[in-house]
Amino acid sequence: MSSIPPSLQALIDEFARLPGVGKKSAQRMAIHILKKPKEQAQRLSDALLATKERLTICKKCFNIAEGGDCPICSDPKRDTRIICVVEQASDILPLEKSGAFRGLYHVLGGVLSPLDHKNESDLRINELVERVKIGNITEVIIATNPTTEGETTAMLVAQMLKPSGVKVTRIARGIPVGSELEFADEVTLTRALEGRGEL
Amino acid sequence: MSSIPPSLQALIDEFARLPGVGKKSAQRMAIHILKKPKEQAQRLSDALLATKERLTICKKCFNIAEGGDCPICSDPKRDTRIICVVEQASDILPLEKSGAFRGLYHVLGGVLSPLDHKNESDLRINELVERVKIGNITEVIIATNPTTEGETTAMLVAQMLKPSGVKVTRIARGIPVGSELEFADEVTLTRALEGRGEL
Repeated sequence: MSSIPPSLQALIDEFARLPGVGKKSAQRMAIHILKKPKEQAQRLSDALLATKERLTICKKCFNIAEGGDCPICSDPKRDTRIICVVEQASDILPLEKSGAFRGLYHVLGGVLSPLDHKNESDLRINELVERVKIGNITEVIIATNPTTEGETTAMLVAQMLKPSGVKVTRIARGIPVGSELEFADEVTLTRALEGRGEL
Repeated sequence: MSSIPPSLQALIDEFARLPGVGKKSAQRMAIHILKKPKEQAQRLSDALLATKERLTICKKCFNIAEGGDCPICSDPKRDTRIICVVEQASDILPLEKSGAFRGLYHVLGGVLSPLDHKNESDLRINELVERVKIGNITEVIIATNPTTEGETTAMLVAQMLKPSGVKVTRIARGIPVGSELEFADEVTLTRALEGRGEL
């Protein structure tokens, strides 16, 4: 639309590239920036560049870090004998929020996906095998997503860890808490039944 | 959460300040920036600062401009005899999108709102009266929001324009297209009936 000044349009376009942001939300965000004092735009601008400049990848678990080890690997209170394997670093956030896991992580960096040309060598499975060999690991929990790719990847990881003799587990798949049986698909229901526990 | 590096947390916090962005969306956006090449962060960062630095306010209609008159006031194809009065510059965007208006605008810069200490002198009504006096204006359409404040402001604007003898109109209030009578409140229904037109 020619009725929008070019630099405002540029800002709208950039906001619209963010995930979950449509054209309308991008417009609202840009107008918001326009209305607020310059400090807010400056802070967001600085934070964007700082994120790209300062953040690195943890050499131990491949989580996001800010120079050196990630906050989890460098936390002396974590249980270093359990490793939870996830697809992406972003999967760590929800797990940490749950507070149910106090061990370490291992970020695979994706899943097996022939269509995206992602194969075994693109994932950090050898690095995991190495960690299990060296460290005093008692259990590896595989927390890849319960998708076809996630399940296939979980199987491969389990298979590659077999020679080490470490205990390998998989997170439970079932009915989400707060949801209803009525809305669950048959595969989830099958998993929920298979994974049933005693009361 | 201590498991997030500080500069990533700072970016999440800044994203969360944007309108319509919750904690979870802010996290997704920050992770997205982290995953994409540095150029994207740089472009958004630049667009933010450019918006604050380059954008000015049009001296004629108080719309957002990029140096000099706004894109609408400087468009020779607009009908300069009709002025549409809006509360905020952001109200111009949806009107322009509709394509139903080809005249000029006048941004009041708010509405009368005693609770927010916004009174007559805070709005650009005198500037509007001046424009009507000087220019060859045939009609002023008041398009403030159909809220209590918007309606009060519309009445005041109409009253202040009265001495000029210009034709003053108000946008129609009624049932939104695509909506149903069932969901309309009684005030809207009253307005829809009052504003009925012949078929």
